[in-house]
Amino acid sequence: MAEWQSTVSPVALARQLRTAHLPEPAGHRPAYRELAGQVRLLVSEGRLAVGTRVPAERELAQALALSRTTVAAAYEALRADGYLRSRRGSGSWTTLPEGSSPPSDALHPLPPDESGRTLDLGIAALPAPQPWLGQAAARAVEQLPAYAAGHGNFPTGVPVLREAIARRFTARGLPTTPDQILVTTGAMTALQLVHHALLSRGDRVAVEAPSYAHTLRALQRADTRLVPVAQHRGRWDLPEWQRVLRDAAPRLAYVIPDFHNPTGALIDEDQRRALLAAARTSGTTVLVDETPAELGWNTTEMPRPTAALDRGAQVVTVGSASKILWGGLRIGWVRAAPGLIRRLATDRAFTDIGSPVMEQLIAAELLTEHLDEARADRHQRLRSSAEALLAALRDQLPRWGAELPPGGLTLWVSTDGLSGAALAQAGEQTGVRIAAGSRFGVDGAFEHHIRIPLTVPPAAAPDAAARLAATAALAATGHWPGLDSALPLAV
Amino acid sequence: MAEWQSTVSPVALARQLRTAHLPEPAGHRPAYRELAGQVRLLVSEGRLAVGTRVPAERELAQALALSRTTVAAAYEALRADGYLRSRRGSGSWTTLPEGSSPPSDALHPLPPDESGRTLDLGIAALPAPQPWLGQAAARAVEQLPAYAAGHGNFPTGVPVLREAIARRFTARGLPTTPDQILVTTGAMTALQLVHHALLSRGDRVAVEAPSYAHTLRALQRADTRLVPVAQHRGRWDLPEWQRVLRDAAPRLAYVIPDFHNPTGALIDEDQRRALLAAARTSGTTVLVDETPAELGWNTTEMPRPTAALDRGAQVVTVGSASKILWGGLRIGWVRAAPGLIRRLATDRAFTDIGSPVMEQLIAAELLTEHLDEARADRHQRLRSSAEALLAALRDQLPRWGAELPPGGLTLWVSTDGLSGAALAQAGEQTGVRIAAGSRFGVDGAFEHHIRIPLTVPPAAAPDAAARLAATAALAATGHWPGLDSALPLAV
Repeated sequence: MAEWQSTVSPVALARQLRTAHLPEPAGHRPAYRELAGQVRLLVSEGRLAVGTRVPAERELAQALALSRTTVAAAYEALRADGYLRSRRGSGSWTTLPEGSSPPSDALHPLPPDESGRTLDLGIAALPAPQPWLGQAAARAVEQLPAYAAGHGNFPTGVPVLREAIARRFTARGLPTTPDQILVTTGAMTALQLVHHALLSRGDRVAVEAPSYAHTLRALQRADTRLVPVAQHRGRWDLPEWQRVLRDAAPRLAYVIPDFHNPTGALIDEDQRRALLAAARTSGTTVLVDETPAELGWNTTEMPRPTAALDRGAQVVTVGSASKILWGGLRIGWVRAAPGLIRRLATDRAFTDIGSPVMEQLIAAELLTEHLDEARADRHQRLRSSAEALLAALRDQLPRWGAELPPGGLTLWVSTDGLSGAALAQAGEQTGVRIAAGSRFGVDGAFEHHIRIPLTVPPAAAPDAAARLAATAALAATGHWPGLDSALPLAV
Repeated sequence: MAEWQSTVSPVALARQLRTAHLPEPAGHRPAYRELAGQVRLLVSEGRLAVGTRVPAERELAQALALSRTTVAAAYEALRADGYLRSRRGSGSWTTLPEGSSPPSDALHPLPPDESGRTLDLGIAALPAPQPWLGQAAARAVEQLPAYAAGHGNFPTGVPVLREAIARRFTARGLPTTPDQILVTTGAMTALQLVHHALLSRGDRVAVEAPSYAHTLRALQRADTRLVPVAQHRGRWDLPEWQRVLRDAAPRLAYVIPDFHNPTGALIDEDQRRALLAAARTSGTTVLVDETPAELGWNTTEMPRPTAALDRGAQVVTVGSASKILWGGLRIGWVRAAPGLIRRLATDRAFTDIGSPVMEQLIAAELLTEHLDEARADRHQRLRSSAEALLAALRDQLPRWGAELPPGGLTLWVSTDGLSGAALAQAGEQTGVRIAAGSRFGVDGAFEHHIRIPLTVPPAAAPDAAARLAATAALAATGHWPGLDSALPLAV
């Protein structure tokens, strides 16, 4: 059975290998092992998708100016380790070894059998707000019989939840009616529906740099062209945004202004207005991801939602219950003009058809009855985690750079020139999962950053920082384990 | 804001208009109204997707051999009725009028405000099996705290549900381990993940004719090429399957052998083996949709699941809790080799990330504790509905053709030469939603069929047949309302 779909060209793979910024080899490792280690890193980090067809040996050798023998030996080593599969006449494609964790980048959850011995600094998600989740679930069970009498299919969402979401937008300063709301199965599904409705292959999409890793990859998988626009010290680079919107006339601009992922920045109303004005001129739809919007644990004033400043019906807003309530609910939403909401509801017949009824009832109950309590709980957790992590990092990794952001779920940390990807791979030895900064950029940018989620309890922060320091020492020694994971380590 | 994505070429639109098989115009209607009515039908039936860019007037006029004035007047009428929007320099694209029901074909649920006055013969979904759903939900609430302590993110599914699904496959004669199972958010999401992993644009996919409407359209939206293979009297046309597999060498064959949708046919083991043998020779992956597999209300012997006869690891199976349990749960699954399951789990980071925890716990509880009771309840409902509907149809529409199938959720009814699409549109006047047969075929096949879901209670069957008979009378008069819905009707 053929399992691949995408293909990476020799030139593109050579570029990815060059931007991997691995530590210099220690000198005693043959070139083929170095190459195999780099490809393995790209696969296990998820930057080269599983199932990607790789170039023929001769082509890659030419692109890398290596001998064909070296590339052939590297491919052989990758096959032996389960990272490559080949078939005569069909070429070779990337795979993951049997038994390795299915999600291949640190942004996926660890399999249960690994979560005991590994500190997961990849996934940025909190436990559910208790006891309110349990209370809301019990209330939902009481409401269920009224829905159980029907087919349970609500393409735009269960009315009580659409109303609750609309009320929350209105309370935040953006008057909203239920017919402007589509309930989705999480924010990624919402983004996927909007992308599919508004974008065609080859369309340009302007994105913040850095930005949310999974959205960037989802857009790349849809064959759009990403135009990154830098973010500086918690502000948009507005002249650059204006230039990109004018010159590239992107179909879509994707932004996270309310506690940006990964930096936690909060964009003020003046900047929002300026971006909307430029987007209006260029005819660009602004897709605002408000997934972290309720996480302002370090700010007192909230700007109004971006769509509240919109004078040209050009803003589409996506939000989620995953961060402020619980990721296990898988409830998100789109706020847009009723016509687009209808279009998206029709389109989802080809994806999830609708969202589950029970989760919608639970989310409606939580949003209506327990949002303030859940928010206070989250803010307290995030603030204490951030303060403890920052203190521990400054203590144990004083040359790394991090600041307390106004909100959000993560710290964005510069690593004093160490490769985030190398740290991520070294972390496999030291027992810590690390989200490399390059995951949040386009084409290998932000290599010298990592993202740390504020999910570490304050008491565990010193241990987390100690593990990171050990990982940094391993990554900096140059004794890169590569495929030699059986060798003794330098820690 | 630009809302379109896809484009329909003049030739393709002309072909769709030609296969629409509308009744002859009554003679007094101008050509532009006829054309506008046909386009409106394609849009409101969902065969021309909302947001599709339509050809320029001149091009369509040429393709249809009509004057440009006629096409311009038709477009103007469509704009006036809210079915088309145009912008200078950007062309025209299909829309739905404000306030019209978002799901535009009869396979979507009715909006609540319409469900009182309309008999919905579109959606084939039963109410939840009570009291077991409520009992399982209450049990799930008890189990929730253990999950609430974590992030709630399970890309492959909550272990108890993976285990329950694997046990059920094993009990059906197909030994299965949990690592062969991916829990998805309904069967459509499962199909979408499999399509994305196994297919590239332009790939050929062999499908039964007829087949499940939404899968056909999802495959067409992914720019694959469908190769329909006829189904005759509850059997596959095996010589034709063998010819198609040999000559077209499709990447994928999509089949519904266990109570086919829409015909309810059950394929025997000999036929399954013959198809698998041919697919092995052609290197085709067989995607088996088992969504209706537990609905054998009119058969005593069940063949083993298709994958149990597989000797080449070439079968991928998709299933769902929606039909045997409840559509409001949105729980489906994929059964495949562990390597493909891992790949799909990684891919879903760009769609739904994971399925909601509560629904998974409810589904696990229902599958483990209440499957037999739920199945008995479903079988009794479906059998009594089928028998009553069949009797009422034979009474009131004796020239229509239908038979009692061995199982499934629908009757596949031939309409004595009446256009199913015309019946669907006439049904808007007579208050009955009808799923036209052409929705289940490729390129307008099965125009003279409709699908009737077995969701009508036996006591309501005579009324349903009476409404269908009135609808048939209206559709047959030739007084096609088209855009003249304000005119008095011929009923």
